[in-house]
Amino acid sequence: MYELGVVYRNISRADRSTADALAAYGSATVHEAMGRVGLLKPYMRPIYVGAQVSGTAVTVLLHPGDNWMMHVVAEQIRPGDIVVAAISAECTDGYFGDLLATSFQARGARALVIDAGVRDVKTLAEMKFPVWSKCISSKGTIKATLGSVNIPVVCAGMLVSPGDVIVADDDGVVCVPRARATETLEAAAAREANEGAKRQKLAAGELGLDMYKMRESLAKAGLMYVD
Amino acid sequence: MYELGVVYRNISRADRSTADALAAYGSATVHEAMGRVGLLKPYMRPIYVGAQVSGTAVTVLLHPGDNWMMHVVAEQIRPGDIVVAAISAECTDGYFGDLLATSFQARGARALVIDAGVRDVKTLAEMKFPVWSKCISSKGTIKATLGSVNIPVVCAGMLVSPGDVIVADDDGVVCVPRARATETLEAAAAREANEGAKRQKLAAGELGLDMYKMRESLAKAGLMYVD
Amino acid sequence: MYELGVVYRNISRADRSTADALAAYGSATVHEAMGRVGLLKPYMRPIYVGAQVSGTAVTVLLHPGDNWMMHVVAEQIRPGDIVVAAISAECTDGYFGDLLATSFQARGARALVIDAGVRDVKTLAEMKFPVWSKCISSKGTIKATLGSVNIPVVCAGMLVSPGDVIVADDDGVVCVPRARATETLEAAAAREANEGAKRQKLAAGELGLDMYKMRESLAKAGLMYVD
Amino acid sequence: MYELGVVYRNISRADRSTADALAAYGSATVHEAMGRVGLLKPYMRPIYVGAQVSGTAVTVLLHPGDNWMMHVVAEQIRPGDIVVAAISAECTDGYFGDLLATSFQARGARALVIDAGVRDVKTLAEMKFPVWSKCISSKGTIKATLGSVNIPVVCAGMLVSPGDVIVADDDGVVCVPRARATETLEAAAAREANEGAKRQKLAAGELGLDMYKMRESLAKAGLMYVD
Amino acid sequence: MYELGVVYRNISRADRSTADALAAYGSATVHEAMGRVGLLKPYMRPIYVGAQVSGTAVTVLLHPGDNWMMHVVAEQIRPGDIVVAAISAECTDGYFGDLLATSFQARGARALVIDAGVRDVKTLAEMKFPVWSKCISSKGTIKATLGSVNIPVVCAGMLVSPGDVIVADDDGVVCVPRARATETLEAAAAREANEGAKRQKLAAGELGLDMYKMRESLAKAGLMYVD
Amino acid sequence: MYELGVVYRNISRADRSTADALAAYGSATVHEAMGRVGLLKPYMRPIYVGAQVSGTAVTVLLHPGDNWMMHVVAEQIRPGDIVVAAISAECTDGYFGDLLATSFQARGARALVIDAGVRDVKTLAEMKFPVWSKCISSKGTIKATLGSVNIPVVCAGMLVSPGDVIVADDDGVVCVPRARATETLEAAAAREANEGAKRQKLAAGELGLDMYKMRESLAKAGLMYVD
Repeated sequence: MYELGVVYRNISRADRSTADALAAYGSATVHEAMGRVGLLKPYMRPIYVGAQVSGTAVTVLLHPGDNWMMHVVAEQIRPGDIVVAAISAECTDGYFGDLLATSFQARGARALVIDAGVRDVKTLAEMKFPVWSKCISSKGTIKATLGSVNIPVVCAGMLVSPGDVIVADDDGVVCVPRARATETLEAAAAREANEGAKRQKLAAGELGLDMYKMRESLAKAGLMYVD
Repeated sequence: MYELGVVYRNISRADRSTADALAAYGSATVHEAMGRVGLLKPYMRPIYVGAQVSGTAVTVLLHPGDNWMMHVVAEQIRPGDIVVAAISAECTDGYFGDLLATSFQARGARALVIDAGVRDVKTLAEMKFPVWSKCISSKGTIKATLGSVNIPVVCAGMLVSPGDVIVADDDGVVCVPRARATETLEAAAAREANEGAKRQKLAAGELGLDMYKMRESLAKAGLMYVD
Repeated sequence: MYELGVVYRNISRADRSTADALAAYGSATVHEAMGRVGLLKPYMRPIYVGAQVSGTAVTVLLHPGDNWMMHVVAEQIRPGDIVVAAISAECTDGYFGDLLATSFQARGARALVIDAGVRDVKTLAEMKFPVWSKCISSKGTIKATLGSVNIPVVCAGMLVSPGDVIVADDDGVVCVPRARATETLEAAAAREANEGAKRQKLAAGELGLDMYKMRESLAKAGLMYVD
Repeated sequence: MYELGVVYRNISRADRSTADALAAYGSATVHEAMGRVGLLKPYMRPIYVGAQVSGTAVTVLLHPGDNWMMHVVAEQIRPGDIVVAAISAECTDGYFGDLLATSFQARGARALVIDAGVRDVKTLAEMKFPVWSKCISSKGTIKATLGSVNIPVVCAGMLVSPGDVIVADDDGVVCVPRARATETLEAAAAREANEGAKRQKLAAGELGLDMYKMRESLAKAGLMYVD
Repeated sequence: MYELGVVYRNISRADRSTADALAAYGSATVHEAMGRVGLLKPYMRPIYVGAQVSGTAVTVLLHPGDNWMMHVVAEQIRPGDIVVAAISAECTDGYFGDLLATSFQARGARALVIDAGVRDVKTLAEMKFPVWSKCISSKGTIKATLGSVNIPVVCAGMLVSPGDVIVADDDGVVCVPRARATETLEAAAAREANEGAKRQKLAAGELGLDMYKMRESLAKAGLMYVD
Repeated sequence: MYELGVVYRNISRADRSTADALAAYGSATVHEAMGRVGLLKPYMRPIYVGAQVSGTAVTVLLHPGDNWMMHVVAEQIRPGDIVVAAISAECTDGYFGDLLATSFQARGARALVIDAGVRDVKTLAEMKFPVWSKCISSKGTIKATLGSVNIPVVCAGMLVSPGDVIVADDDGVVCVPRARATETLEAAAAREANEGAKRQKLAAGELGLDMYKMRESLAKAGLMYVD
């Protein structure tokens, strides 16, 4: 599917304030708000605990063992972006370390999401530059083959188009298509609006069985209680 | 990314004769002809050895443990199609067996490509209905949740749009975007045109080093021979 | 959970004719007949294609890299049994080869199901002694540590008690608890009784959508067709 | 094996003080005290570092992508319980988040052990509600299919019966059958009694070779030293 | 550890007749004859069933996604060799297809053992050129980076030095160090000498318990029989 | 390949000050300084975050589920050593806990690198004894079979000879052959010398494209920019 050797400079990013506002809801709520789709595979893990970000995707397609295009994508970053990196075949090499992170951060990137490995993770944590990756690896890469920048990519099983919104936290990474960002933000806000009341009831010992009125449907489905 | 609960009935299929002609070249040549992209992950394996097919994709998105949409996609199959099934989360259940295969085959489907499990594989082999899948499993599924038919799906790490061409054999599964089918067929034919001559030379003992004139570039890269 | 160092000689096997009759239905139908439970994990694969068996379980618990108890369980085999071998921790060693298979076969065993590796698979295929295993490995084992025979074991994620019925084929391995063997056989027979008629209708091009009357429930669930 | 659609309300829990006392010994010592059995597979990892708990098991069987029974099991929790959740097929979805954790904690549960995914892990850590799981995932679940509560389940390769004792810490999760809880507590205490003395000797530079008097048996086994 | 960019032309191969004779014993017997060491990881599987070979190793180190050195190693093949290919990082690409196989076969190679992927497997099977590999993949490779030929390599977890003997069959792949080839052949022959007699006894129903006189040691270890 | 039942007491360790000095550069820089080789597979992870060590390797070969040789290797440790443990087949058992760590630390060991599991990880972290391992597991081991000490071993895919230098941190584990330790230290120092200047430029917003003068080579390779 991939067009190779091309850099798209002008992409339509999701609305900035919408993209920024989604971070507060976290990946689980946003994923629910979208109808339970959009999640990258759960093997994508943060390199340190506690980061929670959202931003607009700039995408890069790389080849196994080759991080040349990381330097090309750096130039396309604008403040508020999150770089989403896909590899054309399975690879665990460490494509990204503290020098590239310094450059990305200087350009305004908020995070990297990469379906491969990263390194210098201790320094990245100190720099507070979060990365969600498949693995951590010291293995370096070469600079020999062209990929592309800002084409739609499949990253960890999910299609990410340039300009989509990425929401990432300790629970994982969600991609919200640009066209659905506003409705998703509204749905996420609506979901969360009544969570506080629910939490209070549950904390007081009320059961979900009663709060959600499940007893009847469970009985109808045939659930039997045995003493 | 996924739109749920929708069936697109009118899709633009790749040209029939082009789609049919690609089978003869096999997945490796077609993948090379596209510039080494388009391959589904190599965990996708045929349930029996020796099948080699191509056809136009009709796609279906299913949920874990639920094969309801398999019956919905059956109606959208036209002769020469290959059904490409994606699941909204990782699942190894057996979504497909001999009854569905009978139905698919009757509708003219040539194969199934599914990022999950299948069952009744002995019968499927006898029926000569090939399947490329992530695994084989007797685990049955329920029919409770809506997915979609003929939306673009990510299957085994590759984006497949309805109407694209699928080429599958013992080496794996490749997706050729509809818009690139003709050029890919030409490139595949060109690639194979001079393979016969090469094979003859190599069989006679000529080395690739000489046939491809690699010695100079290897020396330039610094290769040293030690006796 | 496991009691170590014990061999139970007298176990209650499922009724012989029931245990024998289940083979004909295969693992997928039997698994459905039980309400979609009882399946061992799908990484359990046959070492050769085409075997389809059922029999009564004699169980053995072994330790990593140690096949001593394989000789102990051999003595407890009666004609019509299938040996189910669990390991107390993950192991891929080859616990079983042609000599043990000769012994098991001489005692009347029909198959081995083992959550580890086997070897001599070419000879086992020639002997027509089927094995379902996690992997194939030449790695030999020692004889140093006691396990147990004919205690309940967890094999590939499923609890198997001595005397239960094992049904195995190219689709996988199912365990039918002894107490449920008769009802499962009846349910399997009932399931299969009307499969022929269904298959004929589907082969004639009738859709599952109509045959199973799914259109209304799909519409109710909100499925939309777009032309 | 599994009985579906049933909730057992009256289960025999292991003695409370015994169940509580086992936490202090940790999973490794308890596992050794049982004769090196009872450990769930090592892919079960805590969602945060440092929790060390024990408690009596209440069990729940769920289906892939469906957490309906989580609300049913909540009602069966008594103070000091640990919920053990098994899934009828492999699944990585996030079955459990902060709302359910609030409910479980209000009912007196000490932890969750689940052979699938969880989410809201940052909040769970703040709530000090520990979970041992196969993975972390934002992926939500539906509420459509009946499982069972308080039947024996296989969780991460280990049989867990309701009322058994669960011991979990950074090293993993062990299940102590109710009938063996007292003897296991005694054996664990005995094991640990002389660990202090051993540790002191080893810290002073004494070798295990001498402390455990291994030199002779190593020589007998044929160990050779080469200078 | 690896020296890069070097081709060793003169290697000391194990004695030809010894290397040839080992095939008949198969990987399991040879692995036992060496004291249960030398086996490559069991994920190494043959691309077709039934091949059983031995030969002298010529080794090649490649980089992820780059098969340039395959052409370099071809020149170093002598009749009776088996090419052993290691990759400097995990990779599943298809490094080898029918053209290279034609060349290797013309040079006298008997097989390829590769810790990565291969393609054109249907043609390779027709050519009777066996390959043991980690996977099968249509994914092609580039020719850009130098590796080495005939240096010691780690392939699938095992050190293989040029000139060592490789024995491979359906059970897996074993490496016999050149210096141990003769003693291993003798040990393998000795092992197999008395297998026929054992097999006959076991086939007649004699138990391993008696044939190997295990009853006493089992009793001493504490094995209890319960009726 | 492995010689069994032997302990080599006199090994040639890499120069102490060189071995000690490498820690400061970290595994990624050292791996690059060696020409991008020497890295153990990235599944090797530290049991706690933040440790960064280097030292001379003493090696031990163990068998699955058997840690007997851990006590043998303890005697061979000298201050500044790192123990590298390989297993003769895949195993996830917990070979090492706080008592052995106390002994190793008393002998002067700085760390353990093991291609299997460890336990008591909370105590190990408190003791500040770092371990890089494949997994964490409470599963205990027996003491029954001889391996070897200070022979070359393959650990996590990398050959490690006794006396080599091990460098390990949050990014992974690298092995520097003894003979290359000095040149590697120099190369690592040279690499890092100009990293500060680069970092400053990148932090100021200069692009790697310009700093490394990549624009021309990218254009030459055919990269196209689309507005």
